[in-house]
Amino acid sequence: MKKNHHILPSEWSIIIDQYYPEQTQAMESIFSLGNGYMGQRANFEEDFSGKTLQGSYIGGIYYPDKTRVGWWKNGYPEYFAKVLNAPNWIGIHIKINGETLDLNKATVKDFYQELNMQEGWLFRKFLVEMKNGSVVAVETFRFLSMKIKEVGAIRYSVQAINFDGLIEIAPYIDAGIHNQDANYDEYFWKINDLQTFDNQAYIISETLKTNFGVCTGMLYHFEKNHQKINSKPIIEKTDKKIAHYHPFEVKKGDVLTLTKFGGYTQTMNVPYERLQTIMQEKLVEADKKGFFELLEQQATEWKKIWQTSDIEIEGDVSAQQGIRFNIFQLNQTYTGEDSRLNIGPKGFTGEKYGGSTYWDTEALCLPFYMATKGEKVAENLLLYRYNHLEKAIENARKLGFGNGAALYPMVTMNGEECHNEWEITFEEIHRNGAMVYAIYNHSNYTGTTEYIDNYGIDVMVGISRFWVQRFNFSEAKQQYVMLGVTGPNEYENNVNNNFYTNYIAKWSVEYTLENLERIKNKNPEKYAEISKRLNLSEAELNRWQKIISNVYFPFDDKRNIFLQQDGFLDKEIKPATEIPQGERPINQHWSWDRILRSCYIKQADTLQGLYFFENRFDNETIKRHFDFYEPLTVHESSLSPCVHSILAATIDRDEKAYEMYLRTARLDLDDYNHEVDEGLHITSMAGTWLAIVQGFGGMRNFDNQLIFSPKIPKQWKSYSFKINYRGAIIKVSVNNREVKIENLSKKNIAFEIYGKPIRLEGNNMYVNKKTEQVNG
Amino acid sequence: MKKNHHILPSEWSIIIDQYYPEQTQAMESIFSLGNGYMGQRANFEEDFSGKTLQGSYIGGIYYPDKTRVGWWKNGYPEYFAKVLNAPNWIGIHIKINGETLDLNKATVKDFYQELNMQEGWLFRKFLVEMKNGSVVAVETFRFLSMKIKEVGAIRYSVQAINFDGLIEIAPYIDAGIHNQDANYDEYFWKINDLQTFDNQAYIISETLKTNFGVCTGMLYHFEKNHQKINSKPIIEKTDKKIAHYHPFEVKKGDVLTLTKFGGYTQTMNVPYERLQTIMQEKLVEADKKGFFELLEQQATEWKKIWQTSDIEIEGDVSAQQGIRFNIFQLNQTYTGEDSRLNIGPKGFTGEKYGGSTYWDTEALCLPFYMATKGEKVAENLLLYRYNHLEKAIENARKLGFGNGAALYPMVTMNGEECHNEWEITFEEIHRNGAMVYAIYNHSNYTGTTEYIDNYGIDVMVGISRFWVQRFNFSEAKQQYVMLGVTGPNEYENNVNNNFYTNYIAKWSVEYTLENLERIKNKNPEKYAEISKRLNLSEAELNRWQKIISNVYFPFDDKRNIFLQQDGFLDKEIKPATEIPQGERPINQHWSWDRILRSCYIKQADTLQGLYFFENRFDNETIKRHFDFYEPLTVHESSLSPCVHSILAATIDRDEKAYEMYLRTARLDLDDYNHEVDEGLHITSMAGTWLAIVQGFGGMRNFDNQLIFSPKIPKQWKSYSFKINYRGAIIKVSVNNREVKIENLSKKNIAFEIYGKPIRLEGNNMYVNKKTEQVNG
Repeated sequence: MKKNHHILPSEWSIIIDQYYPEQTQAMESIFSLGNGYMGQRANFEEDFSGKTLQGSYIGGIYYPDKTRVGWWKNGYPEYFAKVLNAPNWIGIHIKINGETLDLNKATVKDFYQELNMQEGWLFRKFLVEMKNGSVVAVETFRFLSMKIKEVGAIRYSVQAINFDGLIEIAPYIDAGIHNQDANYDEYFWKINDLQTFDNQAYIISETLKTNFGVCTGMLYHFEKNHQKINSKPIIEKTDKKIAHYHPFEVKKGDVLTLTKFGGYTQTMNVPYERLQTIMQEKLVEADKKGFFELLEQQATEWKKIWQTSDIEIEGDVSAQQGIRFNIFQLNQTYTGEDSRLNIGPKGFTGEKYGGSTYWDTEALCLPFYMATKGEKVAENLLLYRYNHLEKAIENARKLGFGNGAALYPMVTMNGEECHNEWEITFEEIHRNGAMVYAIYNHSNYTGTTEYIDNYGIDVMVGISRFWVQRFNFSEAKQQYVMLGVTGPNEYENNVNNNFYTNYIAKWSVEYTLENLERIKNKNPEKYAEISKRLNLSEAELNRWQKIISNVYFPFDDKRNIFLQQDGFLDKEIKPATEIPQGERPINQHWSWDRILRSCYIKQADTLQGLYFFENRFDNETIKRHFDFYEPLTVHESSLSPCVHSILAATIDRDEKAYEMYLRTARLDLDDYNHEVDEGLHITSMAGTWLAIVQGFGGMRNFDNQLIFSPKIPKQWKSYSFKINYRGAIIKVSVNNREVKIENLSKKNIAFEIYGKPIRLEGNNMYVNKKTEQVNG
Repeated sequence: MKKNHHILPSEWSIIIDQYYPEQTQAMESIFSLGNGYMGQRANFEEDFSGKTLQGSYIGGIYYPDKTRVGWWKNGYPEYFAKVLNAPNWIGIHIKINGETLDLNKATVKDFYQELNMQEGWLFRKFLVEMKNGSVVAVETFRFLSMKIKEVGAIRYSVQAINFDGLIEIAPYIDAGIHNQDANYDEYFWKINDLQTFDNQAYIISETLKTNFGVCTGMLYHFEKNHQKINSKPIIEKTDKKIAHYHPFEVKKGDVLTLTKFGGYTQTMNVPYERLQTIMQEKLVEADKKGFFELLEQQATEWKKIWQTSDIEIEGDVSAQQGIRFNIFQLNQTYTGEDSRLNIGPKGFTGEKYGGSTYWDTEALCLPFYMATKGEKVAENLLLYRYNHLEKAIENARKLGFGNGAALYPMVTMNGEECHNEWEITFEEIHRNGAMVYAIYNHSNYTGTTEYIDNYGIDVMVGISRFWVQRFNFSEAKQQYVMLGVTGPNEYENNVNNNFYTNYIAKWSVEYTLENLERIKNKNPEKYAEISKRLNLSEAELNRWQKIISNVYFPFDDKRNIFLQQDGFLDKEIKPATEIPQGERPINQHWSWDRILRSCYIKQADTLQGLYFFENRFDNETIKRHFDFYEPLTVHESSLSPCVHSILAATIDRDEKAYEMYLRTARLDLDDYNHEVDEGLHITSMAGTWLAIVQGFGGMRNFDNQLIFSPKIPKQWKSYSFKINYRGAIIKVSVNNREVKIENLSKKNIAFEIYGKPIRLEGNNMYVNKKTEQVNG
């Protein structure tokens, strides 16, 4: 695995101090900005003719692109929800003595770019010599306001270094953008109106088919040598774009500065008729505050975020930078205020994969947001699925399931399935289990069952109904089996009795029955209401019980392990280390059938089950499974190493834990897989957080308990993390000598450390004078 | 299953005596013409604005259309060979008093259309009242010459019935055609030159990418009231089309007749520079003979074909028509003179499925052509694959197999794989076995091993090398297994140990070893040459032997049957009769995963194996398997009923045999599946022939022997078929009282009837005074 080392070490910033023309598109991803409402790749404001992926995205705004397949299969959805590149609001044309400023065509010097994660802004400066000999110095500041979510701000300065002459600056907005990811190269927008007056411009556009209305706006000012100046624009208005041209005569040394506010309002939040008015209000509000006050607010907002979510690592700046980058990007992607939004695999940093929601949300992201942003945010993630229940029932119906059975989609934007590979869409159904697991996880963590009683139970019953229909009785085995599924390891398709799927299916039904029983005992009226609403009968529940009491799991007596699926041991079993280096990753070198036939595992599958249900397996069992499966795992999914890291820490495979941690922490910063140009791996970033907090920190919250058993990798002097737990902020600090647990709130808390139960009062601290060490 | 009953009963013709506007496209398929070199759907010569699939096809001329997939898998081919609609040579614009003749826009009366199968021509006549009130009578005759393959002939007459006025007739050729089946709606042709002079026109075009050069030509004459007349055309030449307009003043009763010769030369046979010259020569040759002499030759050529291939059925005109239609279409599709050509699933009657060659050729078509057209034709089919061996080796290499292992493509035009569904392309590898089976079949039938020794052995070794690498040793089973395959039953994908595949794989290697041993003993020098050329060592052959001696087959002890694949008995086993009628065919009603999980079988799979290797299984074994699998089979492949019909006859399931026969014989004529508008099911037509000859006739040729054990369905008075066997023509006639076997040649023959060995001298007859009856 080769790595790219362009990013300078820094605890709080992502910095490059050179211009890497070949890396432009990769850097556009890495330096992306987002505020939960919208996101913007680090595209240059000025023109750029080199390789670039222009991307500005608005949360929840998508286009249902017509499905493209080679061979249609019954049941395929007709569209795939595409992450939609929205009209450009950042654009600024610059001409120096008549020549367009374009870093791809000029000589760039003293380039410096910084993404400041502590305060949430992007800065870039460079000196550039144009083909015509003119040299200018450029500085540009940009952020997407965490305070006024609809607005982004840019401060763009150009200084004439070696000439007296003409500098033209033209801020613009442009709806003539396209999606790189479009099945039939169609244009996804309809332009309804373009308005411009004074120093402002607005474009009202609408997505085709989905009819999301969007107003893109801008409002700007100029300064010359740091003094506000008035300048009357020459307006260029085409059918999709409005640009305001401003020519300025300058003397050598003069600095021109453009402050541009821009952004979007959209009809998920604002009525269509008010789109422009409200956009204007937001821009004027930002303008009144001014760039610098807004920037200060930005720092304040980010300070709040870091207060509850920061992880500090001493002695390993690269690890420090890596984890902060992950936490930063997760917070840029999803702020948890809007239960209609979710966490796309690329967040706001690229188009790839489309859709916004995968099972990653439930499996990895929920614990992160739950612990760093609190219960309300976590609940919004759960409500997202609750609100899609009807569509999940409809989805299952399409596949032949009745009685309110629900199958959640593999990939979705609005609750409808939009993926189209039969082996995934129809068969990677374990995702349904993750929905229940998330509810369970939330209940364990918060210590409440309110969500279950009021919302979750409907989801759980729908999913249980799916599972009991999906199992069938095998005459041959005299047990219930589940045929034709794809487990988390997508390097096996259409298998029978995937351990993980059978296990989580059985567990989902068990957990649902358990909760129904609890409600029945505690609140018979509620139970009556639920069972009436969901049309539940004792007979049905008895049938569920009968099925899950007799589920088949593939097992190997010799090795004393569960098998990933039926027939797994018919394969040739050889450790992944025997694959020649030139053939890795195998998904880029081997034909698909060869991958399927091989014993190689894309990502944790049986081990994912052991991770989820660690409390039900002893350490010896986990070790046996880890020793069998880990050597066969090629980790060609970004979701894999973190689970392995956590399990390895659990069973004291310390070197492995650290190795796996490294593989996930700087995946994008070091571009391990040579694909960061397409966008960042947002959801797997939550896995990195888990690898520290659950892996090294040993945090668990099974059975309504909070447990820590921290270790420290020997490369680190110390590390600390914070969690938001049942209303308290707890800070865990670990170094080689001790573990310090601080209760930063007024509430009393209870936890266990290294198996020892502790009660800690508000604003108190507990110190454990010993730390286990991870040998890196 | 609803049927369409438009076709009138007739022993030798396909006739409709009404115009069915809704059925136009279906009738275009059914009335298609072909001469092995080219084919033409029964599109109207005159303009037609209704629903139509315009199709004129030239054998071997294809376009590699860029593959369209949703999700790319490593190993997919980059293109799919499309059957290519070639420039239109049949076109004739007709205007009556200024109004274009178009059956979709006028009132049609007395419509009659006949495809004469005995002589190989298409006739159509009708009376039509135009919107302007003019009535004309039209007659048109058409055939594709079996004598001058490049030429088709049309005789088109228009009679003014109720007016004096203007009739304009414009024969044209037009390269501005398109493919309905085009992944990106591209135009597949490049026009290089258009030439026109006198009564002739030529367009030289070239396929994009594949660069096949094609000259489309026409040459025509007019008659008025059956007297040749000269008429100077008004020439309309655009960049893709040449039309010759001829306006004629007519009196009521006048008849205008256009004789048009047209067709193609192409660069598979003719150098590019000579395309036009030779096209002109062919047209002039045809013209010299004249329409009627050419038509007589056509009848003579077809007479020859029927002499060795006709099946007569007395007492069931619908069955008679059905089987003749099948034999007719097979002969129109492939004449066996050119080993570069093959039998596409739609022949020359439609675009669907693309490619030209599937395993249908080896499994079903070879026996038909071998028995009706002789050994040379059969050998050409074998040579087709021999000539593609290098590409099959390359194909296997792409999938990770070495040492000269060969995997023949699932779908091909020129030897390269062009299908792109991973579960088919990479996994439906049983096709490789059919290649060896065809060689074996040919050797059994001809009683020679020459083809094997000179060509076949290379193919057999390549395929054996593939199989031995594709098996792997299972620790768990201590046997060799084959993982991740798709059997003939495509309603199961990516299964382990498909019985059929394992069986034919093991057998292929066995048969290869057996032949190597034979050559070694009989001709050590030849063997030395072969083993040197193919780099065969004793060690390698020993390894093959070791593997095939220990192959695993899934078996159920309780039922004493082989299982279709591992885990088959984990499914819920319910007969297909329990599927609600409204859900049939299941492939149009059930989601793909549901089909895969179900026990329902698309087409013979385990039973296909028992059919191929019937001599290795006793009747009781066949019965047990038939009784288990037949009720689970939904026959949603046109290749399925024939195999079931043959096996049913073998085990005296006579009703079933007749039911299955009916299902295959008039599949297209009665449009059972409502899809004949896309083209005919050409390859499955060979299955119908097999259902009579091998099913009712009980013909077998295992172990170098010819065997008959005829039965007769009770609906029939008598039937007879002919086969071409080792240089002799044998006619088998069966009625309720006796079976008559005539040797129509001078050669002595030996065969077995009802287990009795018979030797029959040249021009002699054997009569068996008893027939077994099939109860329909």
